[in-house]
Parts: sequence; structure tokens; C-alpha cells
Amino acid sequence: MDHLKNSECIFCKIVQGSIPCYHIYEDDTCLAFLDVAPLTTGHTLLIPKSHYVNLLDTPSFLIAHLNTIAKRIARHYLEALGATGFKIHTNVGKNAGQVVNHYHIHIIPYYPKNSQLNEKPQLSNDAFQDLASKIKLN
Amino acid sequence: MDHLKNSECIFCKIVQGSIPCYHIYEDDTCLAFLDVAPLTTGHTLLIPKSHYVNLLDTPSFLIAHLNTIAKRIARHYLEALGATGFKIHTNVGKNAGQVVNHYHIHIIPYYPKNSQLNEKPQLSNDAFQDLASKIKLN
Repeated sequence: MDHLKNSECIFCKIVQGSIPCYHIYEDDTCLAFLDVAPLTTGHTLLIPKSHYVNLLDTPSFLIAHLNTIAKRIARHYLEALGATGFKIHTNVGKNAGQVVNHYHIHIIPYYPKNSQLNEKPQLSNDAFQDLASKIKLN
Repeated sequence: MDHLKNSECIFCKIVQGSIPCYHIYEDDTCLAFLDVAPLTTGHTLLIPKSHYVNLLDTPSFLIAHLNTIAKRIARHYLEALGATGFKIHTNVGKNAGQVVNHYHIHIIPYYPKNSQLNEKPQLSNDAFQDLASKIKLN
């Protein structure tokens, strides 16, 4: 079926394992991993394993499931990261800032004012891996 | 029950009808209306009728429902507004930009590059009402 994978899609390659990711959460229908260009420490992407371009063509049951998982990840990050807030968003279309054409939800943690964790982190591969291991949701 | 209304909450007052709104959509559990400080033309807020502070304390069935309604509104705005993209987000916590402490989803339409509709509109009450009437989802 067309929606299962798109051979040109970087997120489909992550789902298939041909591109690695800093793994946070996985179930039968979705996958969460660290954004490699994070806006804050812990910036996470949550995607359906099947390929849909954006919110508009994603089946409602998957939108429902992913958004409840986004809540679960955010609640987990309160303790795992010490986050005190979140911006949770999805962009639809290039002119709204969508870069990868595979539906994804950004979960961006925020921390107390003046915390350096609110700034764009520069992380080595090892530091990304250590962070993912620390905040992984089992 | 505590979550049904909060007498200090502006969104609860809108649900009760004691503060008016530019009405877009309503069902048993949620309400959508135009943001009175829109970032683009058609900027819409979608809220549960019951009072929850943010995503983290909102029951998953409501998060699921509201996000599928957000998809429905966005799809409707493709034609009703001529939108070509959307930013759809919720903020959790003051330090992540949450202003009203009642869970709400922003649906922000975007238009082709250089369209004035991408800029903050200055609308009179009548213009807000005309817009809401035009794009109402029945």
C-alpha cells in the first residue's frame, strides 16, 4: 500500500532502520526520536510509521493516537528532563514551515527562564545518544 | 465537577456564553472560535468545553477528539479561506508561551508567499463577524 513507505522519505528510512535515530519511544504505529537540529534540549519528533504527507491526509485514528502519545512523552519529560513547559506543534505545507513531507509532531521542552537548556544545543553524537538513553520512554 | 468550569477562566466564560466569540464550530465536547489577536487571517482557537489547564491534565479522549477536529477545520479552510498551509500547536506552561490556562489548540492558516493574508490582520468587530460567518464549519 502506498502509505506504508516512500522510498525518498528520510522518516520512512528511519522507520525502516536504514538511517539511524536517537530513539525515544516506539509502538506498533508510531516512533519518537530526538530532532538532530534541536531548538531546545530534548526536542523530539513523533511520527506515524506509515507514510502520510501531513496532518491533512493522516487518518484520524493515527492523529488521535499520536497526540495522546505526545502527552505521554511530555509528562515523562517533566521528570526525565526537568522540563516546565512545552511547545507541541505540527506544520502543514512548505509555506507553514514543513520541511519533511511525512506527518510529524514536534515536542519542544522548555525550562525555567534563563536556563541554558532553552537554547539551541550543540551536541556530539555521543551526547545525543546519552541524552536519548536518559530520557527514553519504556 | 471541578473540570467543568473555572469562574476566573475567560475560555470557560466563552463556553458559558457570558463572553461572546466569533463562532466557527461546536459539538458536545469542544468549541472553535476566531482568535481576537490573530497572527494570520483565520487564526482559530479550538478548546474543550470542560476546563483543563493544558495538554498535560486533559483526558486523552479529549486530546484525540480535538486534534481530529483540528484536521477537519484545517481541511475546511483549504477551500473556505484558500489556505495552503497551517501551523497547528498547543503551548504548555507560561515559559512555553501559554497565556490562557485552559487547554487550546491554535490553528493558524498560511497562504501563498507574499499574500497579505499571512500578516497580522487588523479587523473590526463587523469584519471578524463576517469572516466567521464565511468560514463557519457546519
